[in-house]
Amino acid sequence: MRNISPLQKERLNYQPKLAGVLKNGIKNISATLGEKTSAVKDADAIQQLFANIYGKELVTFSSTEASGEFDVKNVGVILSGGQAPGGHNVIAGLYDALKQANPKNELFGFLGGPSGIVDGNYVKFTDDFINEYRNTGGFDIIGSGRTKLETEEQFREVWNQCQNLNINAIVIIGGDDSNTNACMLAQWLDEKNTGIQVIGCPKTIDGDLKNDQIEISFGFDTATKTYAELVGNIQRDANSAKKYWHFIKLMGRSATHVALEVALQTQPNITLISEEVEERKMSLSSIVDYITDIVAKRGNNGKNFGIALIPEGLIEFIPEMKVMISELNDILALAEDDKDYTNIKSKEAKYALITTRMTDNSANVFNSLPEIIKEQLMMDRDPHGNVQVSKIETEKLLIEMVSERLAKLKEEGKYTGKFSAQSHFFGYEGRCAMPSNFDADYCYSLGYNAFALIQAGFTGYLSCIKNLTKPATEWVAMGVPLTMMMNMEKRHGKMKPVIQKALVEINGPVFKELENNREDWALNDRYIFPGAIQYFGPSEVCDITTQTLILEQRKAVKC
Amino acid sequence: MRNISPLQKERLNYQPKLAGVLKNGIKNISATLGEKTSAVKDADAIQQLFANIYGKELVTFSSTEASGEFDVKNVGVILSGGQAPGGHNVIAGLYDALKQANPKNELFGFLGGPSGIVDGNYVKFTDDFINEYRNTGGFDIIGSGRTKLETEEQFREVWNQCQNLNINAIVIIGGDDSNTNACMLAQWLDEKNTGIQVIGCPKTIDGDLKNDQIEISFGFDTATKTYAELVGNIQRDANSAKKYWHFIKLMGRSATHVALEVALQTQPNITLISEEVEERKMSLSSIVDYITDIVAKRGNNGKNFGIALIPEGLIEFIPEMKVMISELNDILALAEDDKDYTNIKSKEAKYALITTRMTDNSANVFNSLPEIIKEQLMMDRDPHGNVQVSKIETEKLLIEMVSERLAKLKEEGKYTGKFSAQSHFFGYEGRCAMPSNFDADYCYSLGYNAFALIQAGFTGYLSCIKNLTKPATEWVAMGVPLTMMMNMEKRHGKMKPVIQKALVEINGPVFKELENNREDWALNDRYIFPGAIQYFGPSEVCDITTQTLILEQRKAVKC
Repeated sequence: MRNISPLQKERLNYQPKLAGVLKNGIKNISATLGEKTSAVKDADAIQQLFANIYGKELVTFSSTEASGEFDVKNVGVILSGGQAPGGHNVIAGLYDALKQANPKNELFGFLGGPSGIVDGNYVKFTDDFINEYRNTGGFDIIGSGRTKLETEEQFREVWNQCQNLNINAIVIIGGDDSNTNACMLAQWLDEKNTGIQVIGCPKTIDGDLKNDQIEISFGFDTATKTYAELVGNIQRDANSAKKYWHFIKLMGRSATHVALEVALQTQPNITLISEEVEERKMSLSSIVDYITDIVAKRGNNGKNFGIALIPEGLIEFIPEMKVMISELNDILALAEDDKDYTNIKSKEAKYALITTRMTDNSANVFNSLPEIIKEQLMMDRDPHGNVQVSKIETEKLLIEMVSERLAKLKEEGKYTGKFSAQSHFFGYEGRCAMPSNFDADYCYSLGYNAFALIQAGFTGYLSCIKNLTKPATEWVAMGVPLTMMMNMEKRHGKMKPVIQKALVEINGPVFKELENNREDWALNDRYIFPGAIQYFGPSEVCDITTQTLILEQRKAVKC
Repeated sequence: MRNISPLQKERLNYQPKLAGVLKNGIKNISATLGEKTSAVKDADAIQQLFANIYGKELVTFSSTEASGEFDVKNVGVILSGGQAPGGHNVIAGLYDALKQANPKNELFGFLGGPSGIVDGNYVKFTDDFINEYRNTGGFDIIGSGRTKLETEEQFREVWNQCQNLNINAIVIIGGDDSNTNACMLAQWLDEKNTGIQVIGCPKTIDGDLKNDQIEISFGFDTATKTYAELVGNIQRDANSAKKYWHFIKLMGRSATHVALEVALQTQPNITLISEEVEERKMSLSSIVDYITDIVAKRGNNGKNFGIALIPEGLIEFIPEMKVMISELNDILALAEDDKDYTNIKSKEAKYALITTRMTDNSANVFNSLPEIIKEQLMMDRDPHGNVQVSKIETEKLLIEMVSERLAKLKEEGKYTGKFSAQSHFFGYEGRCAMPSNFDADYCYSLGYNAFALIQAGFTGYLSCIKNLTKPATEWVAMGVPLTMMMNMEKRHGKMKPVIQKALVEINGPVFKELENNREDWALNDRYIFPGAIQYFGPSEVCDITTQTLILEQRKAVKC
């Protein structure tokens, strides 16, 4: 075996807990059909698009007398999209269930994401191989990728590969898009009477794949705990040195669950929530005012330090920025062939010309930006000529703008403190952490359950585990029709069936918890230091899940 | 009690292990004098400067019959310089020993670092107060600061404060500079027959306060484990996504122990060691070549990903960069009053003028730098007009230069890969982490031992714990005269007595371990994933210390 760390070694021996009845073993459970389902919205359109697999029943499992050997079922598994802690355990759970059902069953792993099945790159799992990856982070067991399975041609190739390898079912481990595509694939394979089943598993550290059926996607628990460890450590540093503000950007472009959860775990002075910014139509200027006000108040109280959490996607949620960037994209696309523009040498003159072509409001927004951000907006463009919003260093933008505003307040005699800031960005640090006990158990159960659904003959279902704030013995393993979570949304100008993305609800219990406390946290130091994820020791330390899940479940129970 | 995390709560109850005989209790040990000591170098000069405290004996402790109550001894404690995990435990150990010796003893904590004792800002420790901070990270218990105690005036003020508070001894917890100053203070207080004792404790995450007496400074263990956790997680991410190079800068300006230790714990593809760069007189260009070569070889093998560790202080160790920056400082200082320079508007023209005033070699170095770094060199200047080397983003500099060189190789048909890089800087994330069991035990022992030295009447000593790779029961608590570790060095043009800083020895066993393996690690993927620091569970997981210490001790035993 390779040279591995003591913790890796120890974790290989961890036996993840199985949800509820699953622990009886794959031969001792049987599926029970519940109510028929609909779609979350646009039911007619969804039903039309997914005629074969739409409207099926919810599935639960119950204990039963042991069955004999099952018929052979071979399965292919795919990891899709960004890494999330626990992916390896989904595969381990799937593998164990499959081998318990019939030792002749085979599990194939397609390499490098969905493209692996199209290109026929795969590996066959063995005990030795899977055993090296139990309870480990990362997706390196078979790799991942961002290819989308959505065309007729790809589906045919999938079918081909399944025939070649004698595969009866495919498990797709991915986020909202990947599960949407899993649903399309399930429909296609069923239409063609291939007999090949498709089961999805809900993955993403962003936490935006959740709904009435999915309590939380896997990886969110571990990733947010890792970020909270770092934010807590930095808070302790700030509170010890008392001389820096730390602006910490956290991964998550399309939803702010990560920053919100980390805030609840650490209680920093400032937390920006993109969804609030959008819903309350906050301007960049008002955001800068909000931060400046807290920095100034603290500084005037002798506290020249603090912590601000910034969601990665913030810029795209500020209405006026969104408009300005969209105008800028159009202007720059035209300017490429415009000699009036291309002949200009100095940056300043370019800015001047461009802003005359913008609406007044956008020109004001553009002019208000620090030089470094203007440059980023003009320079870093993607292959389609669009601004690469993800490359804009929002944390530095805010530091610069707050700094300017504080300088004015100082001139006016309204601010007596000092402002010195450090910026951080955490994302890659948490996506491949070793899964927490929660994610290790949850993922193993998801994978095991995926096979239970396959064994029972279902297709177009998502493997779903509920009641997650309780001990694993009380978890409920389910199958949920993928169509149940879908609606129609406009994508690139066309209406498409998609799984709804869950944004932070500013009327929900999780945001409310922040809102009710943030004034206190802003000026007083209520920092909490979560420390590193613990895998051993007291249950309160190593088995508790996220605040987000706890608050949402508490609310759900009340309703 | 404040709202604290489950791990914080649990750690408050951890009882740190005491070194060897110390666990018998403060009343059951007595000091034994060993050999007389000298200075590590320049013994005559050191003896002259520290006549009263020079050349004293090494001190160890042995078990003895229990003594009765000791006379009252009040102690003041100071945290000095940057945070290091375990500082709170030094104070806890000191407090516990002091109260065990005589419940009437008082411990005073001076606030905000050494300035606290000069300004008379302090807090008196109580059980309730100290209990909230046991085994926690940070220096927030009393704060820290960078004021240097070195002037006659300050020493008088210290004496005043000690008289006001009836303090018999001062414990200074700090790095090499702070302990040098502790030595000066001890000498001064002894000369004046004040009867006030001074004891130092070796702190710094940088690991550069070590010598024949100090096996390792406290905090290094926890900080490097925290960085190794993050580097390991990012490695797993890189190895899963297979599309990014991660250039990770690690804190540590004056020595590279941190990056070296993290490298041994994680086995990345590239690790730069500043001391090697200096000793082997490597140019910036040769460093870029070294990295480019590995990136290209991996890329040509289809591996468009990898990890490079960059020490924070690298720039200052590259001989030609040091010369260029020094020339630039001189040129820019003069240029301020030079209208030929100040009238120039464009950056390019400024660069052109400035490089004509440099030596050819420096001009070449300057011209080879990416635009963003040139700007940083010209813009960010400290109050003395010097380049702020710490603000230079070395990780981005290297990414940019490697990227340019790869583009050339691609043109020449020698490189077929893709290079896409992410940069990271880890420092603040580790300085205030909750101390590992090792640091918790080590620090508690250091503090306890500091009081044992005070009780036995010593001054000008460093609290020292040896045999640290063995279980705590075999650790040896000692007192080492601070003068023993000193020599004369030039500082700001004057010869000064200082404690020698320990740089990475490129002939030492720790660097050799890297050197012997780095070719293999560069091209093959030997990543190790240490995971988060564990406080509970198997001893192999939660009690093992650093590779640096283990390798150095193994070598020491062999000699």
